[in-house]
Amino acid sequence: MTLFGSLPDLTTFEFNVVDNMFSLTVATMGAAALFFFFGRTLVAPKYRPALMVSGLVVAIACYHYFMIRLSWQGAYKFGEDSFTATGKGFNDFYRYADWILTVPLLMVELIAVMSLAKGLARPLLIKLVVAAALMIGLGYPGEVTNDWKTLVLFGVLSTVPFLYILYVLWVELGKAIATQPEAVQTLLSLARIVIVVTWMFYPIAYAIRGDSLPGAIPGIVPEKSGLGVVGTQVGYAIADITAKAGFGLLIFFIARTKSELLTEEERAEQVKAAGVMV
Amino acid sequence: MTLFGSLPDLTTFEFNVVDNMFSLTVATMGAAALFFFFGRTLVAPKYRPALMVSGLVVAIACYHYFMIRLSWQGAYKFGEDSFTATGKGFNDFYRYADWILTVPLLMVELIAVMSLAKGLARPLLIKLVVAAALMIGLGYPGEVTNDWKTLVLFGVLSTVPFLYILYVLWVELGKAIATQPEAVQTLLSLARIVIVVTWMFYPIAYAIRGDSLPGAIPGIVPEKSGLGVVGTQVGYAIADITAKAGFGLLIFFIARTKSELLTEEERAEQVKAAGVMV
Repeated sequence: MTLFGSLPDLTTFEFNVVDNMFSLTVATMGAAALFFFFGRTLVAPKYRPALMVSGLVVAIACYHYFMIRLSWQGAYKFGEDSFTATGKGFNDFYRYADWILTVPLLMVELIAVMSLAKGLARPLLIKLVVAAALMIGLGYPGEVTNDWKTLVLFGVLSTVPFLYILYVLWVELGKAIATQPEAVQTLLSLARIVIVVTWMFYPIAYAIRGDSLPGAIPGIVPEKSGLGVVGTQVGYAIADITAKAGFGLLIFFIARTKSELLTEEERAEQVKAAGVMV
Repeated sequence: MTLFGSLPDLTTFEFNVVDNMFSLTVATMGAAALFFFFGRTLVAPKYRPALMVSGLVVAIACYHYFMIRLSWQGAYKFGEDSFTATGKGFNDFYRYADWILTVPLLMVELIAVMSLAKGLARPLLIKLVVAAALMIGLGYPGEVTNDWKTLVLFGVLSTVPFLYILYVLWVELGKAIATQPEAVQTLLSLARIVIVVTWMFYPIAYAIRGDSLPGAIPGIVPEKSGLGVVGTQVGYAIADITAKAGFGLLIFFIARTKSELLTEEERAEQVKAAGVMV
């Protein structure tokens, strides 16, 4: 159990790789938040809510990575020539707090940028948001347990909404993507792929946690190994940067492309609306 | 190796010169970020993305200099009448994290403010961004090594993309600059020169690091000398302020000049677009 469990000793290098990766993530998420918030006026008003939500996601992640880094620094103390656990533990709940807030919002981003008819958007949105929240919520009891059976049970339970999300994204959303302008269909498909590929990292990290210690892979990475902890934390950071800042950038390009594709008439309509909501 | 290596003792004056320079840099970068973000509406909508990116660069640098300063303060403790190393080390990774994020963005600024046709801008942008990322990434293994051969090897490897950037900026971008309004050609050339002149400082600092200690110049600045550390850190700060805030200001003047040069027709088009995209 990462939350209060014992952490392996780390070399100075190992400790700093994780510590620096957390700092890089704070900077990236913070910069992305500034870009999405200030950049919302670079797209037509219709697509601005999508950029606002992108901004929220990375702003929340920026805060959590700042806190994760403080927790990491509090979890270790510098010994003679290595870092040893202080016993305070490393607080993994920040990650779950982040995901429970941001993963449903990522679904909102994707639906918002498509600007579908309300009758089409609402049911898709409800399905995706509820499934995303269930997926994260059901994962947590497995994350904090030391019991193999509980870990597997909640791992499986959490996989059910994940598979349902895949079904909705590919089967139901697939039809909606086909109605979008050709110029953004590739970007939308790419956004969907980014979701699946980056999300695959999380269950892998969940599974390799091993039977008692963070990062232990039975038969490969010994218990109390620094490598497992470093790999897991750096992997989470890379997955989060891609799934949040990278995904948001795709949403921005989709919104920008759709803004440029507006006809004279639509533009005139938007100008009228812009008078109210610029 | 600056990252975890031993740092020379410093006089109170030497310690404070660096500490104060870091604070001055935080203030400058933060102020520049406010100017570029809020000032984006002072230029025509077409040039606002360039100002947004300028804002991101200095906001990222502001965060990193704040962290660099904290690391500097943690790396030293006040002794009887001088500052001695605490052993925690001074974290140079912040600089590389900063550069890997901001140097490609500086290339984006330059291309964005030129507002070239997409077919012209995209290949230039890809070449410059990839080369910039490679240049920074290849420098890092050399920065953190204590081995002369590794230092020289990665120094040379990192110089290859640097020379390629110079080639693209002077040969390929040169043609594009010639098509720009006469009033901004000098400013664009100046921006290009700022890039080269300020970037020259980084390989010099990289090289004079000496064979074991930060800032040691064999035969000139003795090892464990405070002068080398102070010179390197103050030099980095000045180079960063010039290359980021100064460069961004040039981009702002280019955008402002181009906005003023718009013909009545272009102005009308921009106003229409602005209705949508203010």
